Amino acid sequence: MKAPELGIRIGLHEHGERNSIADLGVMVGHTTLIEGENIRTGVTVLLPPVKNPYRERLFASTFVMNGFSKPIGFVQVNEIGYIETPIALTNTLSVYTVANAMVKHMIELNPDLKSVSPVVMECNDSYLNDIRKMAVREEHYFEAVKSAKLDFEEGSVGAGTGMSAFEFKGGIGSSSRIVEIDGEEYTVASLILANFGGREDLTLAGVPVGLHLKDSPGRGTSGKGSISMVVATDAPLTARQLKRLAKRAVVGLARTGGYAYHGSGDIVLAFSTAQTVPMGKEPELVSFLPDNSLSGLFRATAEATEEAIINALLQAKTVEGNGHVRYALPVEKVLEILEKHGMIERA
Amino acid sequence: MKAPELGIRIGLHEHGERNSIADLGVMVGHTTLIEGENIRTGVTVLLPPVKNPYRERLFASTFVMNGFSKPIGFVQVNEIGYIETPIALTNTLSVYTVANAMVKHMIELNPDLKSVSPVVMECNDSYLNDIRKMAVREEHYFEAVKSAKLDFEEGSVGAGTGMSAFEFKGGIGSSSRIVEIDGEEYTVASLILANFGGREDLTLAGVPVGLHLKDSPGRGTSGKGSISMVVATDAPLTARQLKRLAKRAVVGLARTGGYAYHGSGDIVLAFSTAQTVPMGKEPELVSFLPDNSLSGLFRATAEATEEAIINALLQAKTVEGNGHVRYALPVEKVLEILEKHGMIERA
Amino acid sequence: MKAPELGIRIGLHEHGERNSIADLGVMVGHTTLIEGENIRTGVTVLLPPVKNPYRERLFASTFVMNGFSKPIGFVQVNEIGYIETPIALTNTLSVYTVANAMVKHMIELNPDLKSVSPVVMECNDSYLNDIRKMAVREEHYFEAVKSAKLDFEEGSVGAGTGMSAFEFKGGIGSSSRIVEIDGEEYTVASLILANFGGREDLTLAGVPVGLHLKDSPGRGTSGKGSISMVVATDAPLTARQLKRLAKRAVVGLARTGGYAYHGSGDIVLAFSTAQTVPMGKEPELVSFLPDNSLSGLFRATAEATEEAIINALLQAKTVEGNGHVRYALPVEKVLEILEKHGMIERA
Amino acid sequence: MKAPELGIRIGLHEHGERNSIADLGVMVGHTTLIEGENIRTGVTVLLPPVKNPYRERLFASTFVMNGFSKPIGFVQVNEIGYIETPIALTNTLSVYTVANAMVKHMIELNPDLKSVSPVVMECNDSYLNDIRKMAVREEHYFEAVKSAKLDFEEGSVGAGTGMSAFEFKGGIGSSSRIVEIDGEEYTVASLILANFGGREDLTLAGVPVGLHLKDSPGRGTSGKGSISMVVATDAPLTARQLKRLAKRAVVGLARTGGYAYHGSGDIVLAFSTAQTVPMGKEPELVSFLPDNSLSGLFRATAEATEEAIINALLQAKTVEGNGHVRYALPVEKVLEILEKHGMIERA
Repeated sequence: MKAPELGIRIGLHEHGERNSIADLGVMVGHTTLIEGENIRTGVTVLLPPVKNPYRERLFASTFVMNGFSKPIGFVQVNEIGYIETPIALTNTLSVYTVANAMVKHMIELNPDLKSVSPVVMECNDSYLNDIRKMAVREEHYFEAVKSAKLDFEEGSVGAGTGMSAFEFKGGIGSSSRIVEIDGEEYTVASLILANFGGREDLTLAGVPVGLHLKDSPGRGTSGKGSISMVVATDAPLTARQLKRLAKRAVVGLARTGGYAYHGSGDIVLAFSTAQTVPMGKEPELVSFLPDNSLSGLFRATAEATEEAIINALLQAKTVEGNGHVRYALPVEKVLEILEKHGMIERA
Repeated sequence: MKAPELGIRIGLHEHGERNSIADLGVMVGHTTLIEGENIRTGVTVLLPPVKNPYRERLFASTFVMNGFSKPIGFVQVNEIGYIETPIALTNTLSVYTVANAMVKHMIELNPDLKSVSPVVMECNDSYLNDIRKMAVREEHYFEAVKSAKLDFEEGSVGAGTGMSAFEFKGGIGSSSRIVEIDGEEYTVASLILANFGGREDLTLAGVPVGLHLKDSPGRGTSGKGSISMVVATDAPLTARQLKRLAKRAVVGLARTGGYAYHGSGDIVLAFSTAQTVPMGKEPELVSFLPDNSLSGLFRATAEATEEAIINALLQAKTVEGNGHVRYALPVEKVLEILEKHGMIERA
Repeated sequence: MKAPELGIRIGLHEHGERNSIADLGVMVGHTTLIEGENIRTGVTVLLPPVKNPYRERLFASTFVMNGFSKPIGFVQVNEIGYIETPIALTNTLSVYTVANAMVKHMIELNPDLKSVSPVVMECNDSYLNDIRKMAVREEHYFEAVKSAKLDFEEGSVGAGTGMSAFEFKGGIGSSSRIVEIDGEEYTVASLILANFGGREDLTLAGVPVGLHLKDSPGRGTSGKGSISMVVATDAPLTARQLKRLAKRAVVGLARTGGYAYHGSGDIVLAFSTAQTVPMGKEPELVSFLPDNSLSGLFRATAEATEEAIINALLQAKTVEGNGHVRYALPVEKVLEILEKHGMIERA
Repeated sequence: MKAPELGIRIGLHEHGERNSIADLGVMVGHTTLIEGENIRTGVTVLLPPVKNPYRERLFASTFVMNGFSKPIGFVQVNEIGYIETPIALTNTLSVYTVANAMVKHMIELNPDLKSVSPVVMECNDSYLNDIRKMAVREEHYFEAVKSAKLDFEEGSVGAGTGMSAFEFKGGIGSSSRIVEIDGEEYTVASLILANFGGREDLTLAGVPVGLHLKDSPGRGTSGKGSISMVVATDAPLTARQLKRLAKRAVVGLARTGGYAYHGSGDIVLAFSTAQTVPMGKEPELVSFLPDNSLSGLFRATAEATEEAIINALLQAKTVEGNGHVRYALPVEKVLEILEKHGMIERA
């Protein structure tokens, strides 16, 4: 169950119908790799709501809060302001294999393609996964693409299979928010791959839950790790405005106890589904939401990202691998702590 | 009283002796301008612990979370990695007057000076202050310099005189943290000028205090405003590392309810007092703390900044001006709310 | 005379009617300060072709090649992507006085203004000017505004009065280029304040003229100094695209012998006159030229900037001041050198 | 033959013994892939002068002049300020395969490695190479590593096999410069992969050679393409200073006729061989060259990069492939043009 179903409220804005990035029409697919004792990893793919992302390019931008990270494609997105591929997530040492698969995917779709800039982000799952084995193969990307749907799973799946957060089991989480601007409704959503934080950092709805769970079992390698974040909106924003949006994901991250430690990659990709980027040579009219309308979207980005992280923790299951175990967040105990702090009302 | 004296604990690290930027030897001076019905503004100056900042330059860097701001000097600090003047804070339309005064100050001190890059930051106090009057004069900078001391006041003083935060009275706040790295103790401190946030955003020790104070009187022009932040440390960091530190001030900001709204300037200057920047032509040895030691300093920066913002609110007094009134945070009520949420224990 | 009138051709594109930033409707005004033996400085103001720049905001961006510079307003332009004032140029220590005047100018024009972000750029004229005297006063800005016209002077005027370039007399220069994109004509123009370069660096139409003029009199303080560059276009570009344009000014700079030495501020502001930035809350349609149309504009920006620098040198007159003399470029000798190198045909 | 051997002098500084990046002890290896009619591509690897780059990390930084590029590793280098692998160059669609090979290379060398950030840069050789075939395999990286030496080939080899420049044959070029600072000699060198420019852009020693060669055969797809540049120095520079150095490579690029067109990736990686980055937890002393010593290094970077590009052109051989032919620069004709313009003296 996600946060709202448990009575945990993050922020002031309402969430969308699915409370996930699917509210923007983005389909998500996972390949979950659990092999033998030591392979606990996978691939997650996000398919923007277009038929051919190489042709129907979407305005996009990035923000790097802490760059101990190996993202593929950020330099080009920052220059030209759009994405031209799906977005994939995987483990640190597998981004190149997944990028290769994505190149082949786009080559297949586009007979004239001679250049393409895949977008892949990563976290390091080496606590539960023997990452040196480089278990992810190109076919795993294609399987994830095929399995993509609106009604996707979260938690210890796909790229989230081997991830940890706050010394509990981390992984994939998503959430959305609806914002009204001058009578018009827009949606902002966040999908994150959570693999960061020491136990004592964990903050849930403002409550320092991690301090109360210090002695909960399964601690190890605190403070290492990363978080890759994807923000999507149907508000008609340009690349410059999307960079502003991307930065606000960090506000949500901070509220869960993220500090963007030295060895952490805390990075954000934001895109808008509102319109495709003109491809011709002549001026075209594009829809542009004035910047003084953005504050609500900023708040919504922070809220959706904060809840997405919590949703990853709430939905992840205990996983053993590579000689270690990461326990699922003890949800019942967490709810008790929140209740004691007056941050939840339980039936 | 500051947060710890009221039993409010922010973060895990202990604060320094003065729990302020004075723990780094930085002296702070204020000129508070209260004239007639409509002038409520001022100047605050930070003097780094050197005799002549133009000669004894300190490694420094900046981070801009949201750039709806008019800082003086950021371009040069980012290029050459040091500050060569004191640091001043004032209102939005007075940064140029204060910068002019600082230039004259440095000209006086340095008979050979033909170029200098002052550092001045600002927030907009036009709710309580008739900012169009441009009441700050160059002499006010010099008065602030003269009044600088380690044992400085916080709250509605100096540049903080007319500032608002969360629709309460804002202003100047400071806090420090001590971090142990490999047996050595370092101090990080933050001094901020708080002038941001809507009432409903206010979060104190994780508790959404602002929601409980929705009906507390004095609301108006929510969500406008800015925060200027100065971070100082005695850890031997280079400019690149100080940029990393500066970014973590935003983590503290986010935890108080900051969203870096569109019309907000959320900017950070960070500097190290550990050593002066070599001025010669030959290679010199400088002290360098490896990056994998920085996580503790990152956490401490977030904690000090979060508490500095809260300290500004706790110490600011009710101010009337320009046809408006900003009430001091109702501290007693806040403490009750925190107690109810189990975030404080009161005698 | 400007380069084309002397038979010097820079680049492939044709220049516009006035071969200056006036081809975009930008009016330029100068206040030239020549007082006693030691004051050789001034102010130059650029008025974009709108009635009230605070209301009719223009998309804009900046690029900093080397940030040993004290520009006013760059942080905000980068965040919100527009300028809301005229643009002024002056000496290093006078930017704050000029910014103050510009604030007062905008306050006068806009009775509701409570925040504004002036744009002022500078170079250091302390070789010919006793810069420590801070001779520029606010009235000099207003005089420059009043004198603004399309048919403006270049060379040793306004902010250019005391500037040096390549150890010759530098100052203000401008040039424009016309670019055809898919049947439509656009104009790009550059106006620069040249105050950089050692004698041996000077390159004119690719010819290392400076090496031939090594023994030409008047050398001194080689390699110090800066260049402030303003690029304007009527192509409908967004802020992100204007940043791309701004970067190409550096290509033109490099071709004249610019290296962006350590102590140099090499900075660019670019803006588009094609449309004003929407001010409302609802999405509006804005004109957007696809990025794959930009290469011609990039080339034109480089060409216009290269020629603008050369035009500054060609038009500047010998100036004595502050115990030094800067000789005008010996144009006749230069033309002979160019002829010898086959880069010019003379009657 | 390289430029100096032909009597072409670029800049004022002398070159080093080998006039290449090998003057810094960097060894370079190539795998050249020429298969059938359509495969003309390859891999080039640069091995910094350390035994294990993952342990003996070198200060480094990057600059992106135009980001239509797919570099691997730039985000992390910018954050932590060092490289931890060799540097490789290849074609646009093969960067992921080469990065994968580099990861395996580092895994082999370092039994404890669980994270590593390879550095790979690219240009698009699809004019001469059927890039959609993705002919580069991981073994080609390892072959290039094995073949690395100080006395390496330039021109149409390795990653340069299928590259074009100015509608002539492009490829790999390198050059070095010696700079004296306060009695001490430092070396700066550049190695580039040239694949950019329209015929009319080509400028050689300031002479618009391309205009004279307009009708020289083999034109096609003008203005597309990219340049990847690597700058190395033995001056003790920090990452911030190396970013400054990296920017000056663009000065050299501009002088050859580079405009950084829209579809071009113009990117730079700079590193220093002077010292390894401390790995411990305690402050260490590192050697630091004051910034006011950098101007000579800036000039040398521009000169070395300008000559490296020219050296690529001078050494590249005519290559046919993929239905196209790229002719070698007609060196004899070029020398005649230079002589006519007085930029060379021939025996």
